[in-house]
Amino acid sequence: MPKRTVIFYPIERKILVEEGENLLQAAMEAGIHINASCGGSATCGKCKVKLLKGMADSPKHPKLTQWEYDEGYRLACLTSIHSDIEVEIPIESQVDKSVLALKGDRTAHKYLLAPQDIYQLVPGWEVDPAVFKRFVQLEPPTLKDNVSDLTRMVNTLAHQHGIEGVSTDFRVIMKLSRILRESDWKVTATLVLTKKGSKLINVEPGDNTKQNYSIVLDIGTTTIFGQLLDLNGCVVVACPGGQCDGTTLFALAEASDYNAQISYGEDVITRIVYSQRPGGLKKLQEVVVSTINKIIEELLAMSKIDRSLISHLVIAGNTTMTQIFLGLDPKYIREDPYVPTATFIPPVRAVHLGMNIDDHVHVFTFPMVASYVGGDIVAGILGSGVFQRETLTLYMDIGTNGEIVLGNKDWLASVSCSAGPAFEGAGIKFGVRATRGAIEEVSINHRTFEPMILTIGRTKPIGICGSGLIDTVAELLDTGIIDQNGKFRMDLPTDRVRRGPDGYEYVLARKEETQINKDIVLTEIDVENLIRTKAAIYAGCKVLLASVGLDFKDIEQMIIAGGFGRHLDLEKAIFIGLLPEIDIEKFIFVGNGSLLGARLLSFSKNFLKETERIALMMTNLELSNHPTFMNEFVAAMFLPHTDSSAFPQVMGRLYLARREYPSPRMVEGQL
Amino acid sequence: MPKRTVIFYPIERKILVEEGENLLQAAMEAGIHINASCGGSATCGKCKVKLLKGMADSPKHPKLTQWEYDEGYRLACLTSIHSDIEVEIPIESQVDKSVLALKGDRTAHKYLLAPQDIYQLVPGWEVDPAVFKRFVQLEPPTLKDNVSDLTRMVNTLAHQHGIEGVSTDFRVIMKLSRILRESDWKVTATLVLTKKGSKLINVEPGDNTKQNYSIVLDIGTTTIFGQLLDLNGCVVVACPGGQCDGTTLFALAEASDYNAQISYGEDVITRIVYSQRPGGLKKLQEVVVSTINKIIEELLAMSKIDRSLISHLVIAGNTTMTQIFLGLDPKYIREDPYVPTATFIPPVRAVHLGMNIDDHVHVFTFPMVASYVGGDIVAGILGSGVFQRETLTLYMDIGTNGEIVLGNKDWLASVSCSAGPAFEGAGIKFGVRATRGAIEEVSINHRTFEPMILTIGRTKPIGICGSGLIDTVAELLDTGIIDQNGKFRMDLPTDRVRRGPDGYEYVLARKEETQINKDIVLTEIDVENLIRTKAAIYAGCKVLLASVGLDFKDIEQMIIAGGFGRHLDLEKAIFIGLLPEIDIEKFIFVGNGSLLGARLLSFSKNFLKETERIALMMTNLELSNHPTFMNEFVAAMFLPHTDSSAFPQVMGRLYLARREYPSPRMVEGQL
Repeated sequence: MPKRTVIFYPIERKILVEEGENLLQAAMEAGIHINASCGGSATCGKCKVKLLKGMADSPKHPKLTQWEYDEGYRLACLTSIHSDIEVEIPIESQVDKSVLALKGDRTAHKYLLAPQDIYQLVPGWEVDPAVFKRFVQLEPPTLKDNVSDLTRMVNTLAHQHGIEGVSTDFRVIMKLSRILRESDWKVTATLVLTKKGSKLINVEPGDNTKQNYSIVLDIGTTTIFGQLLDLNGCVVVACPGGQCDGTTLFALAEASDYNAQISYGEDVITRIVYSQRPGGLKKLQEVVVSTINKIIEELLAMSKIDRSLISHLVIAGNTTMTQIFLGLDPKYIREDPYVPTATFIPPVRAVHLGMNIDDHVHVFTFPMVASYVGGDIVAGILGSGVFQRETLTLYMDIGTNGEIVLGNKDWLASVSCSAGPAFEGAGIKFGVRATRGAIEEVSINHRTFEPMILTIGRTKPIGICGSGLIDTVAELLDTGIIDQNGKFRMDLPTDRVRRGPDGYEYVLARKEETQINKDIVLTEIDVENLIRTKAAIYAGCKVLLASVGLDFKDIEQMIIAGGFGRHLDLEKAIFIGLLPEIDIEKFIFVGNGSLLGARLLSFSKNFLKETERIALMMTNLELSNHPTFMNEFVAAMFLPHTDSSAFPQVMGRLYLARREYPSPRMVEGQL
Repeated sequence: MPKRTVIFYPIERKILVEEGENLLQAAMEAGIHINASCGGSATCGKCKVKLLKGMADSPKHPKLTQWEYDEGYRLACLTSIHSDIEVEIPIESQVDKSVLALKGDRTAHKYLLAPQDIYQLVPGWEVDPAVFKRFVQLEPPTLKDNVSDLTRMVNTLAHQHGIEGVSTDFRVIMKLSRILRESDWKVTATLVLTKKGSKLINVEPGDNTKQNYSIVLDIGTTTIFGQLLDLNGCVVVACPGGQCDGTTLFALAEASDYNAQISYGEDVITRIVYSQRPGGLKKLQEVVVSTINKIIEELLAMSKIDRSLISHLVIAGNTTMTQIFLGLDPKYIREDPYVPTATFIPPVRAVHLGMNIDDHVHVFTFPMVASYVGGDIVAGILGSGVFQRETLTLYMDIGTNGEIVLGNKDWLASVSCSAGPAFEGAGIKFGVRATRGAIEEVSINHRTFEPMILTIGRTKPIGICGSGLIDTVAELLDTGIIDQNGKFRMDLPTDRVRRGPDGYEYVLARKEETQINKDIVLTEIDVENLIRTKAAIYAGCKVLLASVGLDFKDIEQMIIAGGFGRHLDLEKAIFIGLLPEIDIEKFIFVGNGSLLGARLLSFSKNFLKETERIALMMTNLELSNHPTFMNEFVAAMFLPHTDSSAFPQVMGRLYLARREYPSPRMVEGQL
């Protein structure tokens, strides 16, 4: 088979491929990222590339305009390579990782708790990790006392530290005799507390008890966040002079990266579909571990902690991400009746999963509740303290999916809404992830209808991200450009509103102002998609509340979690009916709630039982086939909602706006 | 480096070696067996080979006579190869495995219990294995009941079989979802009962509960024995019509082989020495596993059981064999104060040790007591029922070492005597293992002093094995050829007694009657070595008894275990003072006691606790540095013993014999 070369621009990478090979596939294998939200199925149209040189077999496709096709744009997933070629990956088909680091620089949202406040959510605990180290000084053996080295170790742990009935990992036994003698019978034992007692998982020479660290990870569908923690609870950077006051339990280092699985599909469903291809599951497992290993390297480099000192790993993720990470086939998560393989996972040795970490370290996986309510939500309920308060709380985590939990310390109920990844750019014509150049804040002038936009990184825009989308729709509604059905009004004195190839649209940025050399618009179809998404979430909340005989007015606290929460404009989200119109003081944004929970669990063994209790206590309500969900969903397909009594303030504001610019189409519709 | 070829006869194998390579080493690497009891240290002189062709660098050595050297005999351990050579491995330097199979053919010893009687030793138990299978019929999931597959499995096990709080091996989770669906929710669960509850270790499609097997192994220094058991307790061959009456718990198949480690030294000490070479431990671990894998293949082939149906492995071995098998450095077993790495070993996955068995199967290792009192002895105490009887019992296992246990159901004390492997041929000029051609029974005519010898396999003799050695010495003593010091009398009318190169000797077989073309003799030095061995064992018993204020007369039962026991002539063993002169009805020969115990443990979970209790209860007495052991040892260096009051019947018989043939040397000695 002859070989062909492909050169990718702007990254200037050259790869060697087989004649006839698929371009998207070849890029994936080479680790070159091209957006592809449909998993290469030629439906999303995101994997556009521009052929600069050479021949390729690549048909036309509805997602490509004639102009684009003539300019050389092709869908990579439809392209097979038949000569040496050169292609450009346009900016909108790339992912820009640097935005993740930017997030921290932005001014904290006014409802977002500062790190030091977050521990107010879960008061009354002490650092007492489940994986702990003890310094052990053994009496050397004599002819009168020559019990085995292991028996001596176990007896001394009981005698010196009161730890009785320790069991032992076989790998410790392999090196025990040598280390005891090399270190003159003075060693550091690493133990893990399990439901069945303490287990000895490592011995190190000398006194290493001051050096005990863990890594906690939130494995998201889009992004993976990691933190490195000092399990002795002392953070030198936070506590000048190296003295720990016991409350400053920040991470020693934080790192994050896009989940490398995004090359194989943007949401859990496309990932599950990909996993069913031959070798698909293995591939997905490998790439998520490769991202995690990169994060671990970064955390170790930032904190200057030696790899061998990491004793514990805690991961939280949604059920699909967790199963794929563990190599468990996610097939049945997607098929009615949506059954996960396991919700309680025993500790797994990290090296077995391919993680680059010492072989005594086990991965503790947050227990899950159901196929679409995962360990990330259980971790969020732990980390936000819902599990220990009387307060009736609605906890909402909106990421690639939307999961909602209702309850307090005595009971918990959950639903998962297939909200769809509209907030992450999918299904939106110029939708992008919250990446550099994404429009994240929008306001529209009430008289001129001209927009003011802010992008992440303050560069020329490349598209609209989730918070920009909410802002835009809220502003379009507020200014009367769209009506409550999301339909455009065409009689306004502005060329920003026009008829485009996909129907009516609003021009947020003109071609020459963008990085992508195209007008960035929000279409009526985009608005419809957003409405569907927000309706699903709102209806999910409603059904969940109704299932226990409650309503929004009963909610005492509303916690918004998820990377999304950091960018969300609360008032605008209420204005379009994504969030209910309740007292704004009841909202708390906690950021990454899963990571908060993972951190707590790693710091204190007392949370092990609580975590299990949360997972067991949480009752999941399946929305598919639910008798009232569809009605609630349809009722919410309106801005803000067909039940105007639920949004009195929004309605009042809309009433005032409508007096100024009455909508002919709306009037027509009402006749 | 130029390559040289070596051809070995009579096996006709050709190997390629580096110029200058050591011949013994090269043979070992190629898996060609040459006896070597000193681990290649040029002290035992067992690795004689005959150079037929080519040049080799190989010095003379005291173990080679001038005649042998002139004939081309060399010590392989001293030989380096400098040309293409051809060598013959003489029969006495080979091991003949076929004898192991022969043993079963021989008439049972009169004190040896028949297999069906052995269960009388441990009455009152039922088949209820710790590794068990249960058929589980799960309700398929619905939208109303879509808990995870694992939760469904765990709940159904509780509901259908009353097994609560099951934990799960991660490998089961990996395949659970697929198998549940492929088998229409009807599966067989394999569980193991541990101290911490039941653990699910396998699921198979359909009802496989009738197919649950285990393999038990006794890993001896010289020989490894294995049995394949039906854990449902039913043996088709033993129970016509396939009906099991619950008592016929024989093995479905039995197999054995020499421990391939014997190429690296004949006793535990030389093995430990070898393990300290670079790569030595790894090599020893690999070769013992290779022997075990061969035995497993044989067991599976004989029983026609599929490998996947083996659920459990139980091994018993002395501490050194166990540690090497597990890959644990045995170094400190040999160094004062003789500390093993661990006496209680957690279950280890068999595949991790290199065993060719399904990956859900764990190895249960019998707990050990001390460096020289291993799991084989704990298994023997279990298998012989000592642990549950009031009867004061002395349990003696004489193999390559001699271990002795005293006690009953309430207490146990043990000693280990470095008896030396005299009974296995080491230290005896024509000593061989109990292999084909080994002289195993001897009687000597009182008038002619001519011997009658029987060999294993009834072929021409190649040497003397343990039971032949005891017989010969007893007969030499009985006929007055040797005196009570083991010294030869030279005035008898026979040329069988003569002065040889190593001093006085008795000719058991003349050159032309043997396979080795040499006179087979027993020398005065051999007799001395045997006396040392039997003295160590007798003194060990004496010290052990004295340590609890008892004497031989207090013993109510004496159990002799070990492959050795099957060949031993009890009266002759008492005659030379190896065994005490007690009521002959108190003796029981149990054969391989360790294998009995291993079988019990695999059949019934109730023995798990008993086994642990035995190991914890047993107090080991170290004989090195013991204040009275040396005195007892010296006192026993006489035939039968310096304390003639302990052997009244033997002394009476000797008195009668001496009247007939008074010994001038003995009389001299007494003057």
